[in-house]
Amino acid sequence: MAWLDAVAFDENGLVAAIAQDADSGDVLMLAWMNRAALAETARLGEAVYFSRSRQRLWHKGERSGHVQKVESIRLDCDGDAVLLSIRQHGGIACHTGRRRCLFRQLVNGQWQTTDPVLKNPGDIYGQ
Amino acid sequence: MAWLDAVAFDENGLVAAIAQDADSGDVLMLAWMNRAALAETARLGEAVYFSRSRQRLWHKGERSGHVQKVESIRLDCDGDAVLLSIRQHGGIACHTGRRRCLFRQLVNGQWQTTDPVLKNPGDIYGQ
Repeated sequence: MAWLDAVAFDENGLVAAIAQDADSGDVLMLAWMNRAALAETARLGEAVYFSRSRQRLWHKGERSGHVQKVESIRLDCDGDAVLLSIRQHGGIACHTGRRRCLFRQLVNGQWQTTDPVLKNPGDIYGQ
Repeated sequence: MAWLDAVAFDENGLVAAIAQDADSGDVLMLAWMNRAALAETARLGEAVYFSRSRQRLWHKGERSGHVQKVESIRLDCDGDAVLLSIRQHGGIACHTGRRRCLFRQLVNGQWQTTDPVLKNPGDIYGQ
């Protein structure tokens, strides 16, 4: 697909993908996509990333049910960043059970956790 | 500084940094920081990135005047993404003269440019 050729995948074949909540505007997480993940995200209308740790496509929510419905896909000027506007199923994007992965804020030289755990990871992943 | 040790810089010593407009909530750009860039961003209260093309610290706005005043710095769960809430001086984050770098949206299989050029790059950079 021609639109995929505009994406500047890096030396590992990946592009950074930011997921932003379509309602609140909050940035929830940053993950990575290879060409297949981005193509599948567009086809499916749900976020599909590439898991660097597992080295495979990762349909977000495949285990947790916390699927991200994609409202729009954006690309930056030099093609190496993608922005997804998404609706987060279950209201939890982070594997720690928090609303977003970006749950720490730098305050007086220390990272403060600002967001509560909404659901125990053991309950999310059935461990 | 201890807080910097929580950041998982990659094999190139870099971490992805997202800049989000503190007023509109729009994601303006994604760039990269090394340890020195992140330390300097926190110290200065203005975004300092690491330019991969020039291989040096890049105080955003150093040529254009389009400085980013940093309101807050966030870190994600696995420490490999940073989120800056910023106020964009001049209202232009992109070197193309647009408000944001993420100015293309995927519509019917094509990237559509949704944001106008607010200022000619030649006028910004004095070429």
